[in-house]
Amino acid sequence: MAERKGNLVSYRPDIKVLDATIRDGGLVNAFRFGDGFVRALYQAVADAGIEYMEFGYRADRDLFPGDANGKWKFCADEDIRAIVGDKTGGPKVAVMADVGRCNFRRDIHPKAESPVDLVRVASYINTIPAAIEMIDDAHGKGYETSCNVMAVSTAGERDIRAALELLAASSVDMVYLVDSYGALYPDQVNHLTDLYLEILEPKGKSLGIHAHNNQQLAFANTIESCSTGASFLDATVMGMGRGAGNCALELLLNFLKNPKYSVVPIYRFIEEWMPMVCQGQEPTWGYALPYLMTGHFNLHPRPAIEAVRQRRTDYAALYEDLCDLG
Amino acid sequence: MAERKGNLVSYRPDIKVLDATIRDGGLVNAFRFGDGFVRALYQAVADAGIEYMEFGYRADRDLFPGDANGKWKFCADEDIRAIVGDKTGGPKVAVMADVGRCNFRRDIHPKAESPVDLVRVASYINTIPAAIEMIDDAHGKGYETSCNVMAVSTAGERDIRAALELLAASSVDMVYLVDSYGALYPDQVNHLTDLYLEILEPKGKSLGIHAHNNQQLAFANTIESCSTGASFLDATVMGMGRGAGNCALELLLNFLKNPKYSVVPIYRFIEEWMPMVCQGQEPTWGYALPYLMTGHFNLHPRPAIEAVRQRRTDYAALYEDLCDLG
Repeated sequence: MAERKGNLVSYRPDIKVLDATIRDGGLVNAFRFGDGFVRALYQAVADAGIEYMEFGYRADRDLFPGDANGKWKFCADEDIRAIVGDKTGGPKVAVMADVGRCNFRRDIHPKAESPVDLVRVASYINTIPAAIEMIDDAHGKGYETSCNVMAVSTAGERDIRAALELLAASSVDMVYLVDSYGALYPDQVNHLTDLYLEILEPKGKSLGIHAHNNQQLAFANTIESCSTGASFLDATVMGMGRGAGNCALELLLNFLKNPKYSVVPIYRFIEEWMPMVCQGQEPTWGYALPYLMTGHFNLHPRPAIEAVRQRRTDYAALYEDLCDLG
Repeated sequence: MAERKGNLVSYRPDIKVLDATIRDGGLVNAFRFGDGFVRALYQAVADAGIEYMEFGYRADRDLFPGDANGKWKFCADEDIRAIVGDKTGGPKVAVMADVGRCNFRRDIHPKAESPVDLVRVASYINTIPAAIEMIDDAHGKGYETSCNVMAVSTAGERDIRAALELLAASSVDMVYLVDSYGALYPDQVNHLTDLYLEILEPKGKSLGIHAHNNQQLAFANTIESCSTGASFLDATVMGMGRGAGNCALELLLNFLKNPKYSVVPIYRFIEEWMPMVCQGQEPTWGYALPYLMTGHFNLHPRPAIEAVRQRRTDYAALYEDLCDLG
């Protein structure tokens, strides 16, 4: 076990919280948040003392034409500016750019022209060189950058080490440990956090954690990684996010001891704005047996999302189906 | 940090799982489970390789007259026998007896006349001497016994030590660490597990863990305590239990590596029998903001249960109300 950093009374000033509600939550409502919701969330996040808020993806409109997705799939600078205005004192603004789904040379403008502060490049482990190209571009344009290395629960340790060595030598500011499948146990998060820090810390890179709740461990894994040395913590309001959702922001703020954080603005936001209605329906997320099963089998949540959509309750048969995929 | 016992591939033959669905779940449906449900659960628990099943409380009927509670509040030997028959190969049968709520001299019969194997005595820390009187009585009648020390998150370490010293010197077989309020973080569970073992292990007593999910940590705390040395693990199907519920049995069985366990019978049981209907309504339990708040403030879940019953969503005001209690 890696040594603990900090205890239950102390706090680490290097900790930063990133609210990813619009981005990961957008995956369950096709990014159809009204401006009122996003503006109220931005204010709540500011009042809660949270350092970063992610507004969505900067996806390439040529790849996602038509109206299947709301505007936060694309996060145009002007749409963000309509929410944040001049941004005095508010959280820094993040957008996510997927390798292969973002026309970054065209759509990521120089920092001086944009309300965005942080570009988060999401990559599987086999596309890290392409991710570094995007990171270098964003870095050159004046942004903070992160690399969110997805689905590491399926990667071998040699490959993870190789990817981290590349990132450690790059211009990136922070690297995220992303448990896309909600498959990791705290003991594994502890080990991976240690491995990431071993390679990243000497090069001055920060470590972040982004967890999913398939096995009801998103919060536990987030605080495990935090206690072991991660300093950027992703969370979403009520855990809103794909499938079983994420680490709940309200749990995380109650846990963190830095007096700059306050959970009450988040409770007030939930009271006024959630459950949210989107196209006449409440979007759904959260712990359910199909998500537990894909988490347990270390699979992408896709078949679980489909099972929940179909309201399947033949759990034993579903377990067998997923066994075959796992 | 205490040293880990076992790793993700090995398993510890000392681990025993106790299904507490009827007992803790009974707190959300007034113990009104039909015999079909209990019989199917008993079969599923047997097929899953689980060692113990708790059938409910053995409460004193003189203290709870009338029909406010179903029969599993009282767990008459003949009612249990109607479910388990001659019990060949099935799990051991447990009942819970609360200090001050069980007429144990009258209602706990000699083991030879009863289908019960394990009497679990639930006690707050200030009634341990009374608990030991009950434990000695049950031990003398031929039962396995445990002491479930409730709400330790509110007790000081000196008092916990004193209680454990008394129990270590008693006839009890196992002692449970019970996070009644769902207030503990894994780091605290690790520390308490270590403290319990330090006092109990030299006297040959086993340690158990019973967790609640107010902060979405019931499963994480259970595996933390298990990894640190607890060997009796409580869980309930789908986490059914008071307030935010318990450690979900399906999560726990997926985690444990002993090939004797199988999760599929539990999935099949859920498929056929849950959500359950009771008096025309589905009983509710699970993570919700009011439970998170009582967990965070280290309070009994009573005011949260009341807030959920009233469907309160004025979370910021509720937080202030609970602040005053905390």
